[in-house]
Amino acid sequence: MTGSVRVPVVRVRDGRHVESADLAAAEVPLEVRLGGRAFSILMRTPGADRALVAGFLLSERLIRSADDLATIEQCTDLPDEAVEARANTVSVELEPAAAARAAHLLTGRRDVMATAACGVCGRSTLESLRDGLQALPAAATVTASLVAALPRRLRAHQPLFDATGGTHAAGIVDAAGEVLAVAEDVGRHNAVDKAVGSLLLRELLPASHAVLCVSGRTSFEIVQKAWCAGIPIVVSVSAPSSLATSLADEAGITLAGFVRDGGLNIYTHPARIV
Amino acid sequence: MTGSVRVPVVRVRDGRHVESADLAAAEVPLEVRLGGRAFSILMRTPGADRALVAGFLLSERLIRSADDLATIEQCTDLPDEAVEARANTVSVELEPAAAARAAHLLTGRRDVMATAACGVCGRSTLESLRDGLQALPAAATVTASLVAALPRRLRAHQPLFDATGGTHAAGIVDAAGEVLAVAEDVGRHNAVDKAVGSLLLRELLPASHAVLCVSGRTSFEIVQKAWCAGIPIVVSVSAPSSLATSLADEAGITLAGFVRDGGLNIYTHPARIV
Repeated sequence: MTGSVRVPVVRVRDGRHVESADLAAAEVPLEVRLGGRAFSILMRTPGADRALVAGFLLSERLIRSADDLATIEQCTDLPDEAVEARANTVSVELEPAAAARAAHLLTGRRDVMATAACGVCGRSTLESLRDGLQALPAAATVTASLVAALPRRLRAHQPLFDATGGTHAAGIVDAAGEVLAVAEDVGRHNAVDKAVGSLLLRELLPASHAVLCVSGRTSFEIVQKAWCAGIPIVVSVSAPSSLATSLADEAGITLAGFVRDGGLNIYTHPARIV
Repeated sequence: MTGSVRVPVVRVRDGRHVESADLAAAEVPLEVRLGGRAFSILMRTPGADRALVAGFLLSERLIRSADDLATIEQCTDLPDEAVEARANTVSVELEPAAAARAAHLLTGRRDVMATAACGVCGRSTLESLRDGLQALPAAATVTASLVAALPRRLRAHQPLFDATGGTHAAGIVDAAGEVLAVAEDVGRHNAVDKAVGSLLLRELLPASHAVLCVSGRTSFEIVQKAWCAGIPIVVSVSAPSSLATSLADEAGITLAGFVRDGGLNIYTHPARIV
């Protein structure tokens, strides 16, 4: 199945070793090319690659909407015979105005990136992640029963997890609970980027009445990605970090956690859940 | 408790909203300074910061052992009154030979990092993660029953998870099951870096008869970190990714997953589990 790889396995049960095979979630490097140059490498589960890159560039603040994208496609400037490299490269060309903004942003980051090997994407400060972002309006509301049912509904859209047990999922639904996008990936952040990027490519952002539901814990970065997408409600079966709650508070995002067994905890802006 | 932050919460149960408080796992940026310059920002749960940085620098291939560290300490070149900044900065000075190697490594990476905003730490190729690493010797063995019991034993050393439900854990035990290090963090990779770094600072690396046990899924990076630490057996309650299994195969690492309910799956080099 796409996104999985058959691997040999020895199953140990009750003292017996049995040779067998298992499906593992695929984890393959994807090169992102921007304006013809190598920009980033993402370790991802293949599938929805264009959406992944669109969502990633949105979270990186390099694009603001689909209008900023001139082209976004599997690489075409590699030779035809380089099948694997082509499948694992996405090339992006920005519209001129967006390209100028991106160049400005990247120049500002370059000095830092020359010394920052990892971490928060080479940004000099966490504040740069918020530049130009406004707190989201309070308008959207959803019912507590819709929120409580979301993780189980998301679970029904996780074929890769069913096959491998090794992927995270992110789903976006509207205020009526209609599923707008679902994505799976070995990386939690990738799953969110894929779901958000899918909406971006379909010109459905900002998703100002939508709910983002994630399968794992809620970190700072998950909330930051929801903010970039204009999604006012973020829901998880698990716990948020301290920085996730403080960023959600600042962003005007409703953050719910431990959504399980019919109950839930609301950490910020509880008025949206009625 | 250290590593957690009290946050307000509204608990929704059976249609009732009750205002209360919750402990969230702390997530706070840590600045790593190398040779007096900003090197990286890690989003981590405070605690075991020196071990985290030591493990991180080992995985980044910037140091090979504790001998390469001249000093590693909470920042002292900030003014006394900058209490928070001091608590969230670790400064590292390398021994001259290690500093020269690191400078060489970083020069090689600089061009890439100037354009790579994220991903695999700005490296030009995944191959650079393996430079100079040898496949681990086959000598160490452990019993299947020891491996099967590890997740539950690790679980007994997770006070932050008990308090917050929001942290990952990594533990390292010897072949007799004796706990050598346990660490918790909002980030899976940080937890491994903290556990490995703790052994590094105590000059217990390479840990050629040890077992690394992680609470989450096993990605490529977890296996890479075990390899850098010379740990020949990696165990998880959950699934490995495809790239984790292929790297473990190449590294000579025994990779076990789905260690639960008394059973386990062995993906690579099964002869070490007897």
